[in-house]
Amino acid sequence: MTSKLEGFLKTRKALIEQRLPLYIQELQAPATLKQSMLYSLEAGGKRLRPILVLALLHAYGKHEEDGIPVGCAVEMIHTYSLIHDDLPCMDDDDLRRGKPTNHKIYGEATAVLAGDALLTESFKMITTHVSFNVPAEKRLRIVNELVSAAGAEGMVGGQILDMEAESKPVSLQELQSVHEGKTAKLLSFSVIAGAILADAPEEEIEKLREFGHHIGIGFQIRDDILDLEGSEDKIGKRTGSDTTNGKSTYPSLLSVEGAKQKLNEHIEKAKRLISELSLEKELLYELCDMIADRDH
Amino acid sequence: MTSKLEGFLKTRKALIEQRLPLYIQELQAPATLKQSMLYSLEAGGKRLRPILVLALLHAYGKHEEDGIPVGCAVEMIHTYSLIHDDLPCMDDDDLRRGKPTNHKIYGEATAVLAGDALLTESFKMITTHVSFNVPAEKRLRIVNELVSAAGAEGMVGGQILDMEAESKPVSLQELQSVHEGKTAKLLSFSVIAGAILADAPEEEIEKLREFGHHIGIGFQIRDDILDLEGSEDKIGKRTGSDTTNGKSTYPSLLSVEGAKQKLNEHIEKAKRLISELSLEKELLYELCDMIADRDH
Repeated sequence: MTSKLEGFLKTRKALIEQRLPLYIQELQAPATLKQSMLYSLEAGGKRLRPILVLALLHAYGKHEEDGIPVGCAVEMIHTYSLIHDDLPCMDDDDLRRGKPTNHKIYGEATAVLAGDALLTESFKMITTHVSFNVPAEKRLRIVNELVSAAGAEGMVGGQILDMEAESKPVSLQELQSVHEGKTAKLLSFSVIAGAILADAPEEEIEKLREFGHHIGIGFQIRDDILDLEGSEDKIGKRTGSDTTNGKSTYPSLLSVEGAKQKLNEHIEKAKRLISELSLEKELLYELCDMIADRDH
Repeated sequence: MTSKLEGFLKTRKALIEQRLPLYIQELQAPATLKQSMLYSLEAGGKRLRPILVLALLHAYGKHEEDGIPVGCAVEMIHTYSLIHDDLPCMDDDDLRRGKPTNHKIYGEATAVLAGDALLTESFKMITTHVSFNVPAEKRLRIVNELVSAAGAEGMVGGQILDMEAESKPVSLQELQSVHEGKTAKLLSFSVIAGAILADAPEEEIEKLREFGHHIGIGFQIRDDILDLEGSEDKIGKRTGSDTTNGKSTYPSLLSVEGAKQKLNEHIEKAKRLISELSLEKELLYELCDMIADRDH
């Protein structure tokens, strides 16, 4: 990783981690609920989604300030999805990023409600915390993109497909549909939201949607490979769980070598799309490489 | 109930029940997810929240068309909250409106996700299904009101307070805070959203927020009374459950007579607020009486 990318990731991660708790603390809500929401929001992670929002604003040469509440919104959605995924009736996970999962600390009922609250409040990040310089039409459009990415047609739909895939052999195309919904759409949202805030031309926004698809699928393939080859210390959860659970993954369908080749294809396509845009390309190329090479 | 109110309730309920499934059917989402969302949306109910949106438009002499997607949004939020409330880790209910609860039919994981999807998609009702005659600023304001009513500061917060109240004796004021969040805020939202769509004067919108509070608390007191005195057939769930669970209610704190008196006070205050507004009052007075006298 170049020192430029490293600097960008470090400063923006710090910015997001400084702002996220402020939005929760100012809520007029029961203390237990806020603690449970904060517990999972502050459990760490790469903050990749908000960083993508800010990276697009940066690449288009715009101020990043309005990207912060939008980035916090997408991080709140991502966090709610992890809390609900970890529930006993879903993946039944006790550990997330090396810490006990939300329901292990606060109980299942509060975990369900903390997820519901994070999901609901995320929309207010966009409607009120983005500055009034951003026209209402644009804020509505970002809300719409977020619903499409996170709702029945996006992440929640992908989660249902994932559950259905557990009980039957799946094709590569079916596996791709799962991850398109579960992972890629929210990454695409992050990129598109940054571009909308940056007043990017419409045809570039559509190319960025495709870019988001490729880095999203690439991200998931890398996840599957890390589950086989990664270090438990670095990832913060048990490895090998996909194999133990008999889950279809890119390596199980394509072999590890085939999965690595597929990952490279997606990253190359993502870079080619970036090469066609009217923005500073270096940072986004480096983000692509980071997604392909990351060890956690 | 007068035949005018009866006619209004019947036609508007039919309208909402005709439109709600259309919004779900058009989603590009997995069939199981859509079935699970539809199952609970179509389980019946009074559709009081959407009816309040339409009643306000009607009372201000406006077309009701834009109230339909907003009414569907609030019904989707109400429905998601019932699905999550019924989960084994929450109230663990097997029966709702005389039918098996969502998780009894679709399993817990799908029920959690159907709730998440209904919550997420509800926002799109306001941002895209309301006609473009409604300015973006106004649609954003309605989204904001919905987040405040449904999120950490509203319904979800009330649910947390309700859980905390189960394990300790509560005062009348604490009980009121629970129901303000759990019930009144979403009823207030319905009334306010109708008034915003109807271009009501700002000071009337604030009076309607207060009106929503009084009918919301009144609605809950009537619910508590019905749990003691109501007919299981009409309500569609077991009565007496509050007493069995040792739950604090208005009758348990005030006696049944005291609760009935409190209910009347709230309904009278609600009517007084209506009397001060520049709208057709008859329908809203009758809705107040219906809330106070309903048998299910």
